Amino acid sequence: MITVSIIGSGNLAHHLIQTFEAHKNIVLQEVFARNKTNIIAKIDKAKITSDLNNLKEVDVYIIAISDDYIADVSSQFSFENKLVVHTSGGVSISVLSDKNRKGIFYPLQSFSKNKNISFENIPICIEAENETDAKLLTALAQLISKSVYQVSSLQRKALHVAAVFANNFVNYLYQQAYEICQDNEISFEILKPLIQETAQKVIHLTPEEAQTGPAKRGNTKLIKSHEDFLSNTKQLIIYKTLTQSILEHAKKL
Amino acid sequence: MITVSIIGSGNLAHHLIQTFEAHKNIVLQEVFARNKTNIIAKIDKAKITSDLNNLKEVDVYIIAISDDYIADVSSQFSFENKLVVHTSGGVSISVLSDKNRKGIFYPLQSFSKNKNISFENIPICIEAENETDAKLLTALAQLISKSVYQVSSLQRKALHVAAVFANNFVNYLYQQAYEICQDNEISFEILKPLIQETAQKVIHLTPEEAQTGPAKRGNTKLIKSHEDFLSNTKQLIIYKTLTQSILEHAKKL
Repeated sequence: MITVSIIGSGNLAHHLIQTFEAHKNIVLQEVFARNKTNIIAKIDKAKITSDLNNLKEVDVYIIAISDDYIADVSSQFSFENKLVVHTSGGVSISVLSDKNRKGIFYPLQSFSKNKNISFENIPICIEAENETDAKLLTALAQLISKSVYQVSSLQRKALHVAAVFANNFVNYLYQQAYEICQDNEISFEILKPLIQETAQKVIHLTPEEAQTGPAKRGNTKLIKSHEDFLSNTKQLIIYKTLTQSILEHAKKL
Repeated sequence: MITVSIIGSGNLAHHLIQTFEAHKNIVLQEVFARNKTNIIAKIDKAKITSDLNNLKEVDVYIIAISDDYIADVSSQFSFENKLVVHTSGGVSISVLSDKNRKGIFYPLQSFSKNKNISFENIPICIEAENETDAKLLTALAQLISKSVYQVSSLQRKALHVAAVFANNFVNYLYQQAYEICQDNEISFEILKPLIQETAQKVIHLTPEEAQTGPAKRGNTKLIKSHEDFLSNTKQLIIYKTLTQSILEHAKKL
């Protein structure tokens, strides 16, 4: 049995609360939220506190709040030498206050409050300062996920940057496709199966193997006709930058 | 009952052959391939021909070959005033020879020979010069797909450009994420659930609604730390270009 408390009421906190509450081998002791009404997850109201100074003793305190407030909140705890972790991909372990043992519990996924998600297939990246804490965090993570990795702070930073490419930037390209459809009175529905298939292909192929398209084939005539078609400057810049990069990469192969 | 012949032996031809052969209301009369051994789909060998001048009469001749050869092949047919269509997103209907009736039968998906795929969920874009041919092509497409759209040549061009963003460019971003993982000795497996979730989100949300990340939030400190992290020039150029575009877009909202 592992006891935990959660500090935070955002998207990730919401899903952690629901998952921990439902697990028979995890005791969710308390949830801290400045504004108690922010907690919409199913949880005994008595467990919600807005008093950071009187948190009960647990095995792991999980800070799941905005990056900018992690350092500050971790320094406000009244206890010492407990295991305190944060859940951020973009923040170093070192920002946590020195008065407690430090760790990372980083689920690599994009969360929305209004979309249910199972942690079972979400990779959780663990980091700790000593072997005992690493084991405890790994055990906790394995209770809710099949994919648990020990990842250093430098590797976590790399993962976070990689996730910006694979999630934020990818979604922004979907948006360009969406806008091109809108501008030409085409339903975005037509592109959805292609979007799903593109994502599914890299489950079994490397992205290198899955790459297709005019730039990969060096079809400069088609590239020119696409560039002539794009009247939106923003889209033209993205088209030219990525096409140039694919052309150069293809040359090296 | 609709009778068709396929000209070509590439990825799309392969999947069309398999699908048409299996359909009780479609008769696949012949398949033309310069090299008969290229046809690996399950089909009666007697249906395969390498003689373009003696094709039997059918309702629709489907040219599924590389863009550059469509015009040439369509001009070599010995028959006249039949319905001849091509299957390309990037080529105008006008390249087809004037001696036959012209049409488009464009399934919008990325095909690989070694990956089975069901046409049921693949959108098929239809274009024809007259109503009768449009009806016939629509009927044929509806026999194999639930999503059939009448799309003009200009709209098809827009769709093709949009597909470059949503497929080719997206996959290239996956590759950057893959390389960042490799360079930092991280398993690419960790990113796969995020990649799937990113694609699934835009089924029910617009890309605009689904957008997250440092650039969307205007977190310039985090952006700077990512740029400092990226030592690969190619990745830095892509990171800066897309981040700048997201920042400018966010300002307009």
